[in-house]
Amino acid sequence: MEEIITLDYGSGGKKTSRLIEELLVPAFQNPALAALGDGAILPGAEKLVFSTDSFVVDPLFFPGGDIGKLSVCGTVNDLSVCGAEPKFLSLSFIIEEGLPMETLKQVVASIRTQAEKAGVQIVTGDTKVVEKGRGDGLYINTAGIGFLKYPGLGPENLREGDRVLVSGTVGDHGTAVMLARSGMMRGEISSDCAALGGLCETILSTGARVRVLRDPTRGGVATTLNEFVEGTALGIELEEEQIPVRPQVRAACDMLGLEPLYCANEGKLLAVVAAEDAEKVLAAMRQTEAGKDAAEIGVVTAARPGKLVMRTIPGGRRILQKLAGAQLPRIC
Amino acid sequence: MEEIITLDYGSGGKKTSRLIEELLVPAFQNPALAALGDGAILPGAEKLVFSTDSFVVDPLFFPGGDIGKLSVCGTVNDLSVCGAEPKFLSLSFIIEEGLPMETLKQVVASIRTQAEKAGVQIVTGDTKVVEKGRGDGLYINTAGIGFLKYPGLGPENLREGDRVLVSGTVGDHGTAVMLARSGMMRGEISSDCAALGGLCETILSTGARVRVLRDPTRGGVATTLNEFVEGTALGIELEEEQIPVRPQVRAACDMLGLEPLYCANEGKLLAVVAAEDAEKVLAAMRQTEAGKDAAEIGVVTAARPGKLVMRTIPGGRRILQKLAGAQLPRIC
Repeated sequence: MEEIITLDYGSGGKKTSRLIEELLVPAFQNPALAALGDGAILPGAEKLVFSTDSFVVDPLFFPGGDIGKLSVCGTVNDLSVCGAEPKFLSLSFIIEEGLPMETLKQVVASIRTQAEKAGVQIVTGDTKVVEKGRGDGLYINTAGIGFLKYPGLGPENLREGDRVLVSGTVGDHGTAVMLARSGMMRGEISSDCAALGGLCETILSTGARVRVLRDPTRGGVATTLNEFVEGTALGIELEEEQIPVRPQVRAACDMLGLEPLYCANEGKLLAVVAAEDAEKVLAAMRQTEAGKDAAEIGVVTAARPGKLVMRTIPGGRRILQKLAGAQLPRIC
Repeated sequence: MEEIITLDYGSGGKKTSRLIEELLVPAFQNPALAALGDGAILPGAEKLVFSTDSFVVDPLFFPGGDIGKLSVCGTVNDLSVCGAEPKFLSLSFIIEEGLPMETLKQVVASIRTQAEKAGVQIVTGDTKVVEKGRGDGLYINTAGIGFLKYPGLGPENLREGDRVLVSGTVGDHGTAVMLARSGMMRGEISSDCAALGGLCETILSTGARVRVLRDPTRGGVATTLNEFVEGTALGIELEEEQIPVRPQVRAACDMLGLEPLYCANEGKLLAVVAAEDAEKVLAAMRQTEAGKDAAEIGVVTAARPGKLVMRTIPGGRRILQKLAGAQLPRIC
């Protein structure tokens, strides 16, 4: 690791992984943390799932959402993809001196609306204020507790031939925030920010053999799928042609020099399911609003152990690594 | 409330209360949050206690502790004073670009040591990095889950004649941090930063009628005691002469224009207990290292409803209100 923390360490990509794997996991040795899931199933209290995220998105408001909506959805989604029903949230503000009270009120209203939608209660919190120039308006941390309903999900369950499904178009959130930040094309692309509990329930209640669910946030679809297979005997092969990307997102990414597969999503789900069950799960997803554009985008293969490979539209094959560098700082 | 957030809103005093009571509690209506405890006993899961705190202390290292130690003790203490056994912590960093990796390593080592001492496991976490000038080195959020062992504690249990006990000298943390920040007298006064689970267990296992326990952090002893009686038919009368204050802390407070009763503590406990049990509890506290300087400092009275009054050493009476303004910004 380098001698100073650079923005890359917050990218959700390679540097973030190194920090977690080389500094944090060794320091706090315990199986729950070492599992590196989005949420932790608590040792000795296996019905409980616990997760946390801090939110530093810039700007605070963007098409399709704001830091408040994000701070509810981000944490409840981490619980939902573990197979848990999100129940309780803590809410902690770090406010920069000078923030308009009206801004805070709007964010609180957004948190309230989203918490109601997601069926979670905000039960405890904290407020700190830092001097002007020592923050950036507002940072929020939420931690969440859920009750495990569908145990046994995890990338360790992957088998050759499993299918990789995505619940809809990729890259919407990252692109929307980048455009809002740059002041370009504001409003043409909306963040997909949404709570995924309903979609997870729809998928898991089909009884299909679901191996793992994950919401591909920082680092995007390419980074999340890399995390599934990294260091294992299996790889994933994606079909570029099958990956749903909005034309506006594709155009914006071209303009900004981004790749949609590395752009953050805040309301999308990746599901790896047994091949025989893929159609059933896809059909169920497509009957929901959140999953209406769901698609099968790839297959688990033993041919490329540890790698994520994409068959490109022109017909070649490209290895997609984890996100390197800080393509999109402060995207969530 | 004012139109912009000022530092006062993070003081732990009057403005913080207004923000919580006028904006947050009405927005997230639920009994757990409205109880305004340090931790929330979860509705429908009454064995679970949940708490969170963000830590923005400046400087990151001070005599007797650092932001890492504080971020473990602060949250586990909030659980302990609810009568819970702290079990699990989440850990989330907001790092300013440019932080030396060595600093982060030291903080992580401190978190590890303190978590081991407090018997809690760090099970989940998050790391964000913000651009230089958008943070201040390092902010940390922890959230904690504990299992309720001694239910029924709370200021609503206070009765006339109850005794107010403090576990040791007051104002050490606030004074140590202020001196470290100013560069004066560094090292002569140490923060009392410590986990209080053992002391809480000692007190509660005596079987004494303990009405409420609380760790008087931001806003200090005077603010916490005000919170106990505010809006009720009871008041508290303190005896200034009985309140333990280190001479160095008294001298530093005089120099800095502070009042020890409003200075933050991070390893002290206030306990209100039935009069008949006060001696038993004091004796038990004094047998512990953390409670060796414990003292009875006041009594619950019906004579001054809703007020905290202090009989001063010269013999007068002074009303102590909640902390007004931001006496000590970023003390924790």
